[in-house]
Amino acid sequence: MIDFAATKARFRLPQGIIYLDGNSLGPLPEGAIQRAQRTIEKEWGEMLIRAWNLAGWMDQPRRVGDKIAPLIGAETGTVVMGDTLSIKMYQALAAALAMRPDRKIVLSDTGNFPTDLYMAEGLIATLSRGHQLRLVAPEEIEASLSDEIAVLYLTEVDYRTGRRHDMARLTAQARARGILTIWDLAHSAGALPVDLSGVGADFAAGCTYKYLNAGPGAPAFLYVAPRHADSARAALSGWMGHAKPFAFELGYAAAGGIERMRVGTPPVLALAALEASLDIWDRVDLAEVRARSLALGDLLINEVERRCPSLRLVTPRAHAQRGSQVSVAFDGGYAAMQALIARGVIGDFRAPDIMRFGITPLYIGEAEIMRAAETIEEVIVGEVWRRPEYQVVNAVT
Amino acid sequence: MIDFAATKARFRLPQGIIYLDGNSLGPLPEGAIQRAQRTIEKEWGEMLIRAWNLAGWMDQPRRVGDKIAPLIGAETGTVVMGDTLSIKMYQALAAALAMRPDRKIVLSDTGNFPTDLYMAEGLIATLSRGHQLRLVAPEEIEASLSDEIAVLYLTEVDYRTGRRHDMARLTAQARARGILTIWDLAHSAGALPVDLSGVGADFAAGCTYKYLNAGPGAPAFLYVAPRHADSARAALSGWMGHAKPFAFELGYAAAGGIERMRVGTPPVLALAALEASLDIWDRVDLAEVRARSLALGDLLINEVERRCPSLRLVTPRAHAQRGSQVSVAFDGGYAAMQALIARGVIGDFRAPDIMRFGITPLYIGEAEIMRAAETIEEVIVGEVWRRPEYQVVNAVT
Repeated sequence: MIDFAATKARFRLPQGIIYLDGNSLGPLPEGAIQRAQRTIEKEWGEMLIRAWNLAGWMDQPRRVGDKIAPLIGAETGTVVMGDTLSIKMYQALAAALAMRPDRKIVLSDTGNFPTDLYMAEGLIATLSRGHQLRLVAPEEIEASLSDEIAVLYLTEVDYRTGRRHDMARLTAQARARGILTIWDLAHSAGALPVDLSGVGADFAAGCTYKYLNAGPGAPAFLYVAPRHADSARAALSGWMGHAKPFAFELGYAAAGGIERMRVGTPPVLALAALEASLDIWDRVDLAEVRARSLALGDLLINEVERRCPSLRLVTPRAHAQRGSQVSVAFDGGYAAMQALIARGVIGDFRAPDIMRFGITPLYIGEAEIMRAAETIEEVIVGEVWRRPEYQVVNAVT
Repeated sequence: MIDFAATKARFRLPQGIIYLDGNSLGPLPEGAIQRAQRTIEKEWGEMLIRAWNLAGWMDQPRRVGDKIAPLIGAETGTVVMGDTLSIKMYQALAAALAMRPDRKIVLSDTGNFPTDLYMAEGLIATLSRGHQLRLVAPEEIEASLSDEIAVLYLTEVDYRTGRRHDMARLTAQARARGILTIWDLAHSAGALPVDLSGVGADFAAGCTYKYLNAGPGAPAFLYVAPRHADSARAALSGWMGHAKPFAFELGYAAAGGIERMRVGTPPVLALAALEASLDIWDRVDLAEVRARSLALGDLLINEVERRCPSLRLVTPRAHAQRGSQVSVAFDGGYAAMQALIARGVIGDFRAPDIMRFGITPLYIGEAEIMRAAETIEEVIVGEVWRRPEYQVVNAVT
């Protein structure tokens, strides 16, 4: 069982806040504060340039990747950190398309996070070789797998609805047709067990500022299956992915293995905070987190449905089809979320009408879910959301 | 005049160290410590997701870009932060090549920093439309400008030798032939005045962890000339460069202006440290920094040549042709640099035989240069570099 008091104590959570937005930005781990300070003052400040070796900065992208690997079912040495999820998805897709020169279709779904689609659009335009990004509804993916598809390019858990794809089934079906798979794990890593190696995925990437609590804009991870690692093309071929970066050769020669997917100088401060944020997983079983997440999600669904009939559940009820969030549709969703936040219950809103509540059992328990449900009832049934102060639209993230 | 005591006091410099490697990694500004802590504890920790609006995180890439703009002669609103220099050079080159579809040659020189060349190689391979990266010696660039060149793709100051290109002259000659220019300002920004607008450059990018002292792996900047900003193609078309990122549309539509060159979620912690690191430029005149740098560089050159005849100066003597470093070639350069570092004089080594000393007048003065020269004499003339402990090769950055 998760020792909830112990895991919650490892985060600095503001008093009086029920934080149900860890699926967008995880809260601050106490360990990250100390680690960032140490990296700034002791490593950058005192070691200066020598810290690249003395403090292990140069190996950080791979070392931190190895800490994420067990959370996503990846072998040691198959995950590397850096850049953003957008960039890492681009690298994966560029590598995959180069491996299927005779096929031109990238298959994705309309529930994918837009940046994945935008990056694919940009790559396809750059390639200019007749590729096509084909979008279907999430439930039509399986029937759309055919021999003309080069790459299946999906996010496991839908950022809006929380609907979860059957990664094992889709990956197996794709492989049987010679289709390469690229999985975006933004809403999976740290939320639920992922078994990249077991399902036979080819590539995967994810961000670390959601369920991995690494801080705003923390770097992304990229997984490349070992069978591709020494041959995958690093389209963004930066010096850190060179076989001999400090030989300063004029011509590019890719490093062996996952290192080739490094691009530029690593973001040391952010990686340090991330490394500390990952310490909690040494003591927590992701399967237990998943079980708690589903139980807490069930509780929130039941309470909200019982209290607020005007909210329409858009997250699948079935455990196997659900990520780690509960989303409801409501026409006044934007205003309602502002009213909730003003009352200390922080979720977020996604256009056009989705209210999202992230379920993060490391620091959210039954008491928090019940208080959130009560506040949701107050805002929705009590029509607090109609007040003028909640109608003003700001940028929401 | 630069108030040297005041500017030096703004950095946390280890006791007993003469730091001549600010051209690789600038030292820690006191302001960056407080600012990083505030961003972590007060913004991430207390505001949580709300900080994207409340703490101005969403506008950070543009706001910080506007602080860099005056240092590089760029107009407000033409510089954006994010990613790494490698990624930003890729974006610039992809945009430029799309603007010259009838020309196939990218002209660069053998003194360019390798990652720029590697990224160009990767882009050319992805494009697969017959482009060619043509490398000539730095002094042959001018004679190599011809109507078949699409893009002139150079680093202003050579990372090894400190040789500086005549940016105004080369840019004018390129423009006269319809050639677009992309300048890498890694060793220029914060080291010497740059006038991108005045010379008519099309694109420029640079890193911030050298002369801008923003910390290891701090994000890069990208400049796009206003005449291209609304039409330049963002090949790495991420959601933050979308015209309406929070509409979550399935199709990409580029934002107007420089914002389109944003890619993924911005690296908030690193940008916060950077923003604080830039405060010093509110009170310091870059022309004065440049004048001091040249005077200190002259002093180091004279002292080293007088004391150590076996060192061969590779940095041009002429001020107009010099960046803000002094480099000497020496067969035992790697060992000699280890011996210098062991004696508290930190420079760095670049293969095959270059010892580099960065000149950074914000925190280096005559006294530091003289002590460095004495130590160099001790190591070279006293043959300290021959000792076995300095022959062991580690990774050097």
